[in-house]
Amino acid sequence: MRILGLDPGLATLGFALVDVVAPGTPHLFDYGVIQTAKHQPLGDRLHTIFEDLHHVVARDGPDCAAIEKLFFYRMGNLVAVAQARGVMLLVLHQRQLPLQEFSPPEIKQALTGRGNANKHDVRAAVMREFGLTRPPQPDDAADAIAIALTGCFRRHAIA
Amino acid sequence: MRILGLDPGLATLGFALVDVVAPGTPHLFDYGVIQTAKHQPLGDRLHTIFEDLHHVVARDGPDCAAIEKLFFYRMGNLVAVAQARGVMLLVLHQRQLPLQEFSPPEIKQALTGRGNANKHDVRAAVMREFGLTRPPQPDDAADAIAIALTGCFRRHAIA
Repeated sequence: MRILGLDPGLATLGFALVDVVAPGTPHLFDYGVIQTAKHQPLGDRLHTIFEDLHHVVARDGPDCAAIEKLFFYRMGNLVAVAQARGVMLLVLHQRQLPLQEFSPPEIKQALTGRGNANKHDVRAAVMREFGLTRPPQPDDAADAIAIALTGCFRRHAIA
Repeated sequence: MRILGLDPGLATLGFALVDVVAPGTPHLFDYGVIQTAKHQPLGDRLHTIFEDLHHVVARDGPDCAAIEKLFFYRMGNLVAVAQARGVMLLVLHQRQLPLQEFSPPEIKQALTGRGNANKHDVRAAVMREFGLTRPPQPDDAADAIAIALTGCFRRHAIA
């Protein structure tokens, strides 16, 4: 089972692919970011996300996806991020990937046991889980790993 | 010059096509709505918008498009509408349609001369412009006509 984790964004969108080989042993297959240039028209930027995310899915072949829910209070650029997230959801649908959505507190709870954990605690949990000696970079990719890992834990809990 | 006007929405998206035959003589070519079912998964709904909007553009052949800007204070379902709007902008880009974006006050100003006009005033202006005896239905299509008409006026003012 390969899970695609996605951290929504317009300028920078994080993605990560985590494999569950056996229950409780996730493996970090790949991670990175899709970036769009701020000076480009919005339509071009959304099309870049559409094309690049299709490419990632075609190349890395996930079985399912997990994506962060958006919250009003979290960001000033909510409309821009939501528009990008709409295109991301379209691609996941076109690739027929079953989807889980998690709020930031749900991700924190799954990884650290506390829904109000800070970013540092979440990073530490990700590093511990995969035996990493330093936090994955950039931050948007690290967030995507946390989201994919939440998907692993939740699927394992359900199964 | 055929202008596609779009009123963003997830459950109901309004569209309208207005032709400018000669300066100052707009003709209402077509209008309607794209609807998605509330009980469907979000990905399916966004894909319906993607497919249906591509179909409208392929069928009616607009030369350019005008779409409403989103405002925080206007709607509780801002994230849902913004996600749908992202898919709409993607389609317009894929169809290579030049795009104008207008805020609600800009639309009211263009059609009635007052940025704080109410919905009834805007409807009356649309009816007068096209010699209609009753308001176009449904409301989302009427809003799309107002947006297309604003695009006509602005283009004519620029040209």
